[in-house]
Amino acid sequence: MENSIDSFFQPHSIALIGASVQEEKISNVILKSLIQFGFKGKIYPINPRYKEVEGLRCYPAIGSIRGKIDLAVYAIPAERVPDAIKEAKGKVKGAIVVSGGFKESGPKGMALEKELKSAAVSSGIRVIGPNCLGIVDTVSRMDTFFVPPGRAKRPPRGKLAILSQSGSFAVTAMDELASQGIGISRIVSYGNRADVDEAECLEFLASDKETGAVALYMESVEDGRRFVEAAGKCAARKPVMAVKVGKAQAGMAAAASHTGALAGRYELYRAAFRKAGLIEADGYEEFIAGCKALSTSGPPASKRVFIITDGGGIGVNIADACSRLNLEMPPIEKEAADELRASLPSFFSVSNPMDLTGSVTDELFGLALEKALQNDTYGLAIIAALWGPPALTDRLPAVIAGVGRRMKKPVLVCSPGGEFTRKKDALFRRQGLPVFRTPEEAARAAAVLAKAASKLN
Amino acid sequence: MENSIDSFFQPHSIALIGASVQEEKISNVILKSLIQFGFKGKIYPINPRYKEVEGLRCYPAIGSIRGKIDLAVYAIPAERVPDAIKEAKGKVKGAIVVSGGFKESGPKGMALEKELKSAAVSSGIRVIGPNCLGIVDTVSRMDTFFVPPGRAKRPPRGKLAILSQSGSFAVTAMDELASQGIGISRIVSYGNRADVDEAECLEFLASDKETGAVALYMESVEDGRRFVEAAGKCAARKPVMAVKVGKAQAGMAAAASHTGALAGRYELYRAAFRKAGLIEADGYEEFIAGCKALSTSGPPASKRVFIITDGGGIGVNIADACSRLNLEMPPIEKEAADELRASLPSFFSVSNPMDLTGSVTDELFGLALEKALQNDTYGLAIIAALWGPPALTDRLPAVIAGVGRRMKKPVLVCSPGGEFTRKKDALFRRQGLPVFRTPEEAARAAAVLAKAASKLN
Repeated sequence: MENSIDSFFQPHSIALIGASVQEEKISNVILKSLIQFGFKGKIYPINPRYKEVEGLRCYPAIGSIRGKIDLAVYAIPAERVPDAIKEAKGKVKGAIVVSGGFKESGPKGMALEKELKSAAVSSGIRVIGPNCLGIVDTVSRMDTFFVPPGRAKRPPRGKLAILSQSGSFAVTAMDELASQGIGISRIVSYGNRADVDEAECLEFLASDKETGAVALYMESVEDGRRFVEAAGKCAARKPVMAVKVGKAQAGMAAAASHTGALAGRYELYRAAFRKAGLIEADGYEEFIAGCKALSTSGPPASKRVFIITDGGGIGVNIADACSRLNLEMPPIEKEAADELRASLPSFFSVSNPMDLTGSVTDELFGLALEKALQNDTYGLAIIAALWGPPALTDRLPAVIAGVGRRMKKPVLVCSPGGEFTRKKDALFRRQGLPVFRTPEEAARAAAVLAKAASKLN
Repeated sequence: MENSIDSFFQPHSIALIGASVQEEKISNVILKSLIQFGFKGKIYPINPRYKEVEGLRCYPAIGSIRGKIDLAVYAIPAERVPDAIKEAKGKVKGAIVVSGGFKESGPKGMALEKELKSAAVSSGIRVIGPNCLGIVDTVSRMDTFFVPPGRAKRPPRGKLAILSQSGSFAVTAMDELASQGIGISRIVSYGNRADVDEAECLEFLASDKETGAVALYMESVEDGRRFVEAAGKCAARKPVMAVKVGKAQAGMAAAASHTGALAGRYELYRAAFRKAGLIEADGYEEFIAGCKALSTSGPPASKRVFIITDGGGIGVNIADACSRLNLEMPPIEKEAADELRASLPSFFSVSNPMDLTGSVTDELFGLALEKALQNDTYGLAIIAALWGPPALTDRLPAVIAGVGRRMKKPVLVCSPGGEFTRKKDALFRRQGLPVFRTPEEAARAAAVLAKAASKLN
């Protein structure tokens, strides 16, 4: 299909309009990002002023390249973009316009965006943007984000896709998640969506085999019906989490000036999310916690949570946080409780939350978790392993992960603390266990998974 | 006053009952902590089995030390503690009993705790604990926490005191705060409070010149009236934040087994907090955010928040988070807004939140913040400085801190992101600015300061 957006995610050739040798220019950053990220296709810098940029042959115009190009990235002043798109007619399939200065910037920009829209229609070129960062794609190794990797880490390959209306949100979330080792398939910062919108991206992701879950950050939607249809299609196949910001009156005003969109009444969004079967989440922290959970764990069979810890105080905090998010924490079933009492030292409290105290060992941690998860009482578990107990070793994460795999249940790790604790995070991650830094973050992640359970069951 | 608890915080001599040469024993960890933290007074290891422990002369019994001892730390099995306390009568002023196995562990422990209580009364020795970590005191350089510094960082000296019923919470919060460079005066993990309780600690802190603010973590209270009186006395002189956990039914059950205390109905605590003028906060995350705010900032003159950022999406998130916590975010006053429009590039949105966009410079950031804060519209500001904009330099934190000082208003820094961003945190901290890692964390801190404003005004 000529007009599909698939070519954005599997380009064989990319032209960079406005390529520059000047390091401080965003077009220079983008070119370096493309090269460094390991894009395997052909890259064509375009600028009449240079013969070569970053070691690549530079072309004076898009017309001077032989053959068709899958993707063109535009990093030129807004007023030159519409004509440049028209110029690429018949030559280019898709365009990413990172330039700002469109409808987010007032009446003049709004007129420019109209021009851009009609240029897209008349040329048959699909457009992502303007006023966006474009795409980071770990599958096709494409990276158009104009924040250098030294300032914002790129993620390893993974099964979670991220869609974001806000560029600064996309880059901040990517940096945070990548720094925590979270794998991602594709990130799309779509900005003002003069052409391609979140609905079309959701349709693509619905059938994208590289993507197992989707996280969507939105400030507004333009065509509600289309959005619900596309989101519903995607959510029927994989968990889709959505965060809508601009709830506050003040927040609304900010969102309106930020991408030129009206944030709208939150209740309408809620209803749309419910209709489409989306997992509703709230703000930056729930977005990050949800991404961490969805990137590592499938939806649990039920939303009943078992909490186990070696530090009583933290267990109480997790229970409080879970309770605030309306998670269920039923007590351990009699049979399992009896078995646990028979096999554990008497000073361990056999309850939910369960406190294994400072006398815990790796084996007892695993044993208690396994017995509690062995029947249908719980759909998932939060373990808070504080590293105080002297008998705990670096083998603990493998023991815990083994139980999760055998019981086929998501296990979330809550590990609050400072430098020493953070150094241990990698041990859990290497075992495929997501690590959360506060009781509340673990509860947020559990709540997202619990909602995923109720959508899919 | 012979029975005051002052000697716990200015001891000249400490005896460690049950000192051991075995590295895995907690008494060995405590002795090392005391030495490493730089305690200036005399340390007496006590154990009939050794002549020397960790290079210090070891005494067979407390009675073999000449003269009186300010403080004795007990790290011996629970059943031996009551007699050991009686043995120290007339010799020791205060005792910290870190041993567990008292009322938190069932009927036998409950009987032991009764014995401990009467031993304290009959010997005239004040007791902190049992089932606690004791004290980390950056003023007297005393450290009885039995988690080694390599596993839980000790804080630099500061003006915030922390009281915690839960030992695991105390050590986790200390580690987290210390790893973020937050200064603390004294931390008391008081455990089962067989004798000294949170009320007496609050009375001490009320007149403690080294402490400018207090953070209290509690699971329960035994004597509500006494608590309200002591807390009210302290809160009249300095901000006191209190977190009460065990709200959830499940949380309650966990708290009950954890320190043997009944968590009680939360509404009663709320009323008590209000009566005493405490700042109520919620769970681990609000505790940490509140500690960071109170350790660096005095209460603002009003609770009206100004939000300024260089990434629109993050500004919207902060506004949403502030709105959820009922903070006020009035628009910029006309006069200041006109001044700002005259002195700023036209594409900056002059509003609250204010988005300076990727074109911001250090100077424009400072200028916009200063003009917005110059009159009484706002009591405090949250700045979200994302490090994407190419013109921002490492001078920004000094510029921002300068504005805060000149305007005499707390400025909270919201800086979400990954590794690069975390490396920049120290720049803000060096300028005395607290750094928050998510929009929600910054909002929580602002909410705590806003509550401090309303208590003191």
